[in-house]
Amino acid sequence: MEPNKAAPTLIDPELYPYCDKGLEGIVAFSSRKSFIDGAKGELIYAGYSIETLAEHATFEEVCYLLWHERLPDQAELDALHAGLQAERGIPETVTAYLKSTNPKSEPMSVLRTAVSMLADEDPDAEDMGAEAQLRKAIRLTAKMPTIIAAFDRVRNGKDIVTPLAKGSTAYNFLYMLNGEEPGSHAERVMDLCLVLHAEHGMNASTFTARAVCSTMSDMHSAVTGAIGSLKGPLHGGANTAVMEMLMDLHEDTDIVAFVKGKLERKEKIMGFGHRVYKTFDPRATQLRILAKDLAREVGKEYLYHWSEAILKTMKEEKNIDPNVDFFSATVYYSMGIMPDLYTAIFAMSRISGWTAHYIEQLNNNRLIRPRQLYLGAKGLDWTPVEAR
Amino acid sequence: MEPNKAAPTLIDPELYPYCDKGLEGIVAFSSRKSFIDGAKGELIYAGYSIETLAEHATFEEVCYLLWHERLPDQAELDALHAGLQAERGIPETVTAYLKSTNPKSEPMSVLRTAVSMLADEDPDAEDMGAEAQLRKAIRLTAKMPTIIAAFDRVRNGKDIVTPLAKGSTAYNFLYMLNGEEPGSHAERVMDLCLVLHAEHGMNASTFTARAVCSTMSDMHSAVTGAIGSLKGPLHGGANTAVMEMLMDLHEDTDIVAFVKGKLERKEKIMGFGHRVYKTFDPRATQLRILAKDLAREVGKEYLYHWSEAILKTMKEEKNIDPNVDFFSATVYYSMGIMPDLYTAIFAMSRISGWTAHYIEQLNNNRLIRPRQLYLGAKGLDWTPVEAR
Repeated sequence: MEPNKAAPTLIDPELYPYCDKGLEGIVAFSSRKSFIDGAKGELIYAGYSIETLAEHATFEEVCYLLWHERLPDQAELDALHAGLQAERGIPETVTAYLKSTNPKSEPMSVLRTAVSMLADEDPDAEDMGAEAQLRKAIRLTAKMPTIIAAFDRVRNGKDIVTPLAKGSTAYNFLYMLNGEEPGSHAERVMDLCLVLHAEHGMNASTFTARAVCSTMSDMHSAVTGAIGSLKGPLHGGANTAVMEMLMDLHEDTDIVAFVKGKLERKEKIMGFGHRVYKTFDPRATQLRILAKDLAREVGKEYLYHWSEAILKTMKEEKNIDPNVDFFSATVYYSMGIMPDLYTAIFAMSRISGWTAHYIEQLNNNRLIRPRQLYLGAKGLDWTPVEAR
Repeated sequence: MEPNKAAPTLIDPELYPYCDKGLEGIVAFSSRKSFIDGAKGELIYAGYSIETLAEHATFEEVCYLLWHERLPDQAELDALHAGLQAERGIPETVTAYLKSTNPKSEPMSVLRTAVSMLADEDPDAEDMGAEAQLRKAIRLTAKMPTIIAAFDRVRNGKDIVTPLAKGSTAYNFLYMLNGEEPGSHAERVMDLCLVLHAEHGMNASTFTARAVCSTMSDMHSAVTGAIGSLKGPLHGGANTAVMEMLMDLHEDTDIVAFVKGKLERKEKIMGFGHRVYKTFDPRATQLRILAKDLAREVGKEYLYHWSEAILKTMKEEKNIDPNVDFFSATVYYSMGIMPDLYTAIFAMSRISGWTAHYIEQLNNNRLIRPRQLYLGAKGLDWTPVEAR
């Protein structure tokens, strides 16, 4: 007998409506962090619409908003910037790991290990108090871009670039990645990408973070679990998968035929559809504008034309709209960033939402412990090995 | 405004029955791996009662049973032993990490990092095929005891002991931990502990593993997340907490007064109560017998008497029964193992259940993506920072 391959057929949906359905529609938590109206294409972070935040907020303001549920005043924002700037360095053990590890490792796998390792040197690692949690959230938000940039430098045979004690998260990330200070346009584009990916309700990685937290485990455990969850192609891994799909194309590819061919062969077109949104993902709307400008700026307008052609064909053929991953892929690619880093960039933004949810869960915790429906045998008698 | 401290009061339990209640009572998955009847105190792994398995099965047979849903014949069992023996070594990078890390790190934190790191050198790391999953499950089961023992040796200034290419998981773990081959009684006790902790339905760490898997993320991500979840004191961390509680006592402590005092001060007595069992945890019954024999054998009978006195007082005062963590603590302590390793030993057994559930989830996957009830504001207008 091989491992259970058949989909279970014994489940009475009246009795177990959520069984094997990914908890679709179940309200697992209350939260003050974000709100999604999937029918209207509406996304709110702690009171502010994503359109308002995209227009006005920096990533650091969004971090503060998610952690404190209000915007910072000037002194509070300055203190947060100073805190992030002071915490961007990574321990020697983490640098040693990044230098010694397999350069072909998946970047999300390396990020998962390095973030887990940060606990060893974090003076607050096992402190479950509220102030310690906030300090850990700032440290993790500060150090994740440094880890990602350092690994990308090392695997390409380049020296690691030390973070600057000035500038924003977006600015420092691009500086450490490329070894030169970014222009203000590039910084603003990266900052906007971080704003758009920061928080998104009870997605799989945030749910994982809350599930880990619910055992009263520490923040590094919750964030490490969330990184592992985000890594999957049905979640954050999708933006890398979108670009990998696009990179198979050539400037003269017939995009409509390409999409229709994939649909006929029942292959998945990455970056479309969403469990919650049944209309245009509002983050995709924001990124679409960016993608167009950027592609033109870097002389890769074909990228944007491909995207629009795919979008139009998917709407006509399947009536499915793009999600946030669809345009973030071409935006990052236009900025010269390698596709296999896109999910890690997602993580260095979503760390703000994960840590905000971790803190919220601790304040009103109950162990996450659902049940399962047993479909196997019962009461089997033991047979000694020689008689099997 | 400080982070949300008040428990939410707006939730209509009729509309959102599972909100903030830890998904209690919700059936999230179907499974052939295990069955629990909490009212009767019944636990089944893939057809066999825990009592049958405790009497007859080795941990390796249980691993095979959980992965394949049937017991192995002699050739299959021999092949599994050979596979585990061949895979017990750990990569140089992991050894270097264990040697260089903070010796005061929490062992579960170190295990989380080291297991995550194993992905870098695993040739099947990103392979989502069924055979690769089984190879990874065997590797993880083989390497986790080596990691735990090596860290304990290093932090105590001792040389790391290389695993033997013979013997069981229990045998090798005790050998690597102590630097000498264990007697057959010690091996049998450790093996039985591994059998009893291998699988337990939709507990928080297994649920975490399935949630991570549901994004189609890799097995190392799922197991890393599960280790982080098990670490919490409301889950696997409880056995360490039990022993830490007992270590505050002295041979002449009045145990009844100690327990009553704790209850009066509303302090938690670790190792009692369970979300699912409303009677004696059948694993505790098995461990209770072991604990008694062992405590006598090592001349620490007081440990067992304390346990029985606590158990009796808790039953009389609160009508709560002990869970698996309560007796596993004194069993491991009697074997001379340091309390902060107990949760990691739990993990090196539960890896069999986690990987079995991971494989089962992949065979019938749907993304885990519940919803949250938003309690915050909407439609706030932007205020520039200087006006806040």
